[in-house]
Amino acid sequence: MFKIDVTSTKELSSEQLETLAKMWQRCAARIIISTTLAKSGHPGGSLSSLHTLLLLYAMMKHDPSNPDWEERDKFVVSIGHISPGVYGVLSEYGYFPEEDFLTEFRRAGSAFGGHVEQGVPGIEWNTGNLGQGLSAADGFALSAKLAGRKDARTFCLMGDGEQQKGQVAEARRFAVKYGLKDLICIIDRNHLQIGGSTEEVMPVRVRDEYKAAGWNVVYVADGNDFQQLYKGLRRAFLHEDLDPERPVVVVSRTIMGKGISFMENKEKYHGSPLPEDQARQALSEIGLSPSLLDEWKKKREAHTITPVAHSYRKMPTPHIEPGEPIVYDADTITDCRSAYGNALKSLAEANNQPGQVPKILGFSCDLEGSVKMKGFHSVSPDAFFEVGIQEHHAAVCSAVTTRDGFVSFFSTFGVFAVCETYNQHRLSDQNQTNLKVVSTHNGLDVGEDGPTHQCIDYIGLMENLFGFSIFMPADPNQTDRIVRYVATTTGNCFVGMGRSKMPMVLDLDGKPFFGKDYEFIPGKADWLRRGKEGSATIISYGATMPYVMKAWERLQEMGIQVSVLNMASIKPVDEEAIIEAAKNGPLLTVEDHVVTTGIGSITARVLVQNGISQKLRCLGVKRYGESGKPADLYRMHGIDTEAIVEAIKNI
Amino acid sequence: MFKIDVTSTKELSSEQLETLAKMWQRCAARIIISTTLAKSGHPGGSLSSLHTLLLLYAMMKHDPSNPDWEERDKFVVSIGHISPGVYGVLSEYGYFPEEDFLTEFRRAGSAFGGHVEQGVPGIEWNTGNLGQGLSAADGFALSAKLAGRKDARTFCLMGDGEQQKGQVAEARRFAVKYGLKDLICIIDRNHLQIGGSTEEVMPVRVRDEYKAAGWNVVYVADGNDFQQLYKGLRRAFLHEDLDPERPVVVVSRTIMGKGISFMENKEKYHGSPLPEDQARQALSEIGLSPSLLDEWKKKREAHTITPVAHSYRKMPTPHIEPGEPIVYDADTITDCRSAYGNALKSLAEANNQPGQVPKILGFSCDLEGSVKMKGFHSVSPDAFFEVGIQEHHAAVCSAVTTRDGFVSFFSTFGVFAVCETYNQHRLSDQNQTNLKVVSTHNGLDVGEDGPTHQCIDYIGLMENLFGFSIFMPADPNQTDRIVRYVATTTGNCFVGMGRSKMPMVLDLDGKPFFGKDYEFIPGKADWLRRGKEGSATIISYGATMPYVMKAWERLQEMGIQVSVLNMASIKPVDEEAIIEAAKNGPLLTVEDHVVTTGIGSITARVLVQNGISQKLRCLGVKRYGESGKPADLYRMHGIDTEAIVEAIKNI
Repeated sequence: MFKIDVTSTKELSSEQLETLAKMWQRCAARIIISTTLAKSGHPGGSLSSLHTLLLLYAMMKHDPSNPDWEERDKFVVSIGHISPGVYGVLSEYGYFPEEDFLTEFRRAGSAFGGHVEQGVPGIEWNTGNLGQGLSAADGFALSAKLAGRKDARTFCLMGDGEQQKGQVAEARRFAVKYGLKDLICIIDRNHLQIGGSTEEVMPVRVRDEYKAAGWNVVYVADGNDFQQLYKGLRRAFLHEDLDPERPVVVVSRTIMGKGISFMENKEKYHGSPLPEDQARQALSEIGLSPSLLDEWKKKREAHTITPVAHSYRKMPTPHIEPGEPIVYDADTITDCRSAYGNALKSLAEANNQPGQVPKILGFSCDLEGSVKMKGFHSVSPDAFFEVGIQEHHAAVCSAVTTRDGFVSFFSTFGVFAVCETYNQHRLSDQNQTNLKVVSTHNGLDVGEDGPTHQCIDYIGLMENLFGFSIFMPADPNQTDRIVRYVATTTGNCFVGMGRSKMPMVLDLDGKPFFGKDYEFIPGKADWLRRGKEGSATIISYGATMPYVMKAWERLQEMGIQVSVLNMASIKPVDEEAIIEAAKNGPLLTVEDHVVTTGIGSITARVLVQNGISQKLRCLGVKRYGESGKPADLYRMHGIDTEAIVEAIKNI
Repeated sequence: MFKIDVTSTKELSSEQLETLAKMWQRCAARIIISTTLAKSGHPGGSLSSLHTLLLLYAMMKHDPSNPDWEERDKFVVSIGHISPGVYGVLSEYGYFPEEDFLTEFRRAGSAFGGHVEQGVPGIEWNTGNLGQGLSAADGFALSAKLAGRKDARTFCLMGDGEQQKGQVAEARRFAVKYGLKDLICIIDRNHLQIGGSTEEVMPVRVRDEYKAAGWNVVYVADGNDFQQLYKGLRRAFLHEDLDPERPVVVVSRTIMGKGISFMENKEKYHGSPLPEDQARQALSEIGLSPSLLDEWKKKREAHTITPVAHSYRKMPTPHIEPGEPIVYDADTITDCRSAYGNALKSLAEANNQPGQVPKILGFSCDLEGSVKMKGFHSVSPDAFFEVGIQEHHAAVCSAVTTRDGFVSFFSTFGVFAVCETYNQHRLSDQNQTNLKVVSTHNGLDVGEDGPTHQCIDYIGLMENLFGFSIFMPADPNQTDRIVRYVATTTGNCFVGMGRSKMPMVLDLDGKPFFGKDYEFIPGKADWLRRGKEGSATIISYGATMPYVMKAWERLQEMGIQVSVLNMASIKPVDEEAIIEAAKNGPLLTVEDHVVTTGIGSITARVLVQNGISQKLRCLGVKRYGESGKPADLYRMHGIDTEAIVEAIKNI
């Protein structure tokens, strides 16, 4: 494998330059061939960045025969659409035969997709939604720093178009605040994006912005010249004449479509391949036989895809101690978020040893106090990250650290943890992360902060993310157990709660229902109360549960028996329990959530899909909320005790 | 009403200063009293910004007796949580009696919520999710510029904490690109946010960032000194020694809790009110009687809220010509996005007259070509806005312009138009805007760009926004009619389509089903085919429709009769049609969307809620997609013609 020793090599030798030129030729051909044969893809940016890719893999620490080598540097390709360039270079360095790439690029079932994905050996992080890559690189750099890997570097290749995305500014600040000095970002500054010149689409003073954020800035006037680019990259590697405590950005002036005369500086080739005749011409121009195209065309046509030929990087499965459950007694009145805070603190005590690499990380967005992370912070100061009002960055960065084996908790209000950052979680989920999104303020129960702060759509949204579980504890005891469960189980989870203090759920003996012996099992609902045969069942969860329990009492007093089913596990949902309830009598769902996208809707689906005909009445939120006390809002929206009693009487 | 003539007043007279001091005293008292009596709210930032608020309303053009005065300046309070300060000052200037505010603040049913809302006279835009305010102000400034209102200014008051949000950087660039020189932004720089010092939470070099973005920067060293602040604001108003073509930011150094000695510089008071005893002490300290608190307490307790006492600003209902529908004949094969582009261009021709203020605006995010806005752009160059890869800003800014009577189309891929910007649409929806989100690339049908670009959750998400309709045309003809419908009807709409070219939907005579005489009616499904009694019905929409129609043909050939119901109107949904179908025979839903959150789920809900027992089988997407040709992906995910035929045979 071609390698350049950065410390000893001040400039590239003519031999090295010759080798690079040969490598460039082969990779450029792959870019042309792959996109032309796939009839889609992004050749322009791939050519623009090709010099950078070739040099980086020669300079960084990696092992193609062991892509998961723990000592490797990490590289995030934020501009995932330059996959033809990346795949070509990875095959050049021996990660896989070029044939895999050239015969499978952009074909259904292959790992060689249009945007880079971890299914391809050598890829660290799936990208495609521009502007998220620097946050991902921050995450890897943070992991390396936490693990004490002093010689580990993290790289991020970005486009200049994506500098427009606000999230980039957030990631920049985080890197400076947390001293991610071994983070090197390269911006492929070709001044073109799909819509045309960056100056016409949306001007960004790229270098000024990075300087204003406190970054080291290195400028390379010709980033398609190996020697110039090498010197710039080397300076970044060694922090030569740069602030040693700060990250570096290398702004590399390049040319879109570089190397193929009729592609250069044409935005058209950002997202369009060459037709076959022009592809042959391009191959000739770089000194290769035009018939290469036809050879690969035949091979591609003859090749059948075996779906998911390449597997994902292995997900780390850290061993986490659940710690000792905290049981709140029957008389305690507290909020679930305090129980979350206490559980998280206890998990830190059980798993994060002073002086050792922490196992559990916590990320807050200017709401450490409200989301009750202060306990965790005090026990594990080095494992707590205050990201500021930068939720997009926090969501991605926290998720990325889990790919390095940390278990990360990201906590803020539901509106920011879900509504604002949905698309960030979506990409993380496609990256098979192990993030714990714990959102402490949800529903009308948020109260006086009003509709902007009342997340009433957490199920509606998170239900769409295939890898995420959704858990909504019914009281502080169940919160404790759910938080310990998610900490010790691999996979993305959303845990949501209301803001208000509430009493414990008790059994008929007046003891905590989720007591000492209770164990949380996902996909298993809790029969808090059992009615008699033919009784209706109230299905609910989370912040409405105290209202439901009071309604149960009220109904008891009236001589009306009902069952109460607590759906703490919304996804996976306990279909059997719903079926059992429906076979017994009519159903009433109650939730502090948009009525059409919550448990009511899930219940309807379960009934129909199981061919069960049963009455179902759904109470929930039918308009945006108001600013006021939760109890008043529940009354106004018809989800309070009174409304529940009435609904049962009418069912 | 107290007014300062900015042109003639170089500095404030002692008389003016005295008046302001008196006003300050009354408003400070209102801040203390309102938050203490509500037992919640944000007094610290309200006091910090009070000088600014008082001066702004004296300097800007507005009329408390006519809050909707068309000639007024616009003012966006991006830090919506300083509502006690804003309400206090609005009442001081005569927008409403202070009693309305002091007796109702943060009480359920009142317009005087925790974060400012348009229900309160004088408020232009509901805020609360930090970081969106500057985008809103950009929108108002853009409207004023488009309307040719040369003397109209737009103001935005922001916090320094929210400078961390990435969206602010996007809005900054847009203001420079589009020359929004009459936009004046004031940053309340008190160096505290809820989590503590801004330097500890997440440092931002505020002035450097604005300079790097090309803004004029004015610094006020003591923003709690009326004279100093006035001079700074005046400089901004008059562009004194500033670049006349660029917007201005006034960075005003202030003190959180200013004026109450024991509140000053304490982050605690960002979000916590004083207890009653300290509130009395605070009133004494500013020279008022402590008994004021008790007087207002009594009044507050005696007061009953009449829900929604204050109505919203009137929504402008612009008159839009629908233009001449374009009918694609039976043989045409094209994509819905081209039909969208053609319809939008024709709408521009019918409504945007050269040399006059345009009625319809278009916003693109670096995808003008892909989303087919080039035609619109060429007809109405001044009404088209290329925002760059800045979707958060684009979503808010485009929505805000509709509050000034423009009809705005915001177009990009579904992943950016919905997943990335959901929370922006959510706040716009709470602001009752008239935005047309037309997303041209949705579903697995996006194809080779792979899972990051395949929006398969547009219904799942948009279903949660109460004010949004959801329309999914079945072919280019229906697209044309839906686009004209949404342009001419007030309210937020989402219109989604796949990427692929498709044939027209034809009737049994081989003529376009959505032909010359077709009119789109929301909430009305289309019976594309009618089976016989007992026949199953296939319910589908959008990009799967060609596969469904082929399945229908195939089934016909096999002698199996089915009905085909096109649900172009997903929200509102045609419950009657679903009921009719279910009464006739079993149902099969087919969609290129997450199977648990799309039309299948909606159908299940309709069945259960109407007490109808019927077989329902749902085909849809059950995992993230892959990169490949749509037809291959449809096959792999079991939503192609073959799978539909099989499902019908098994039902």
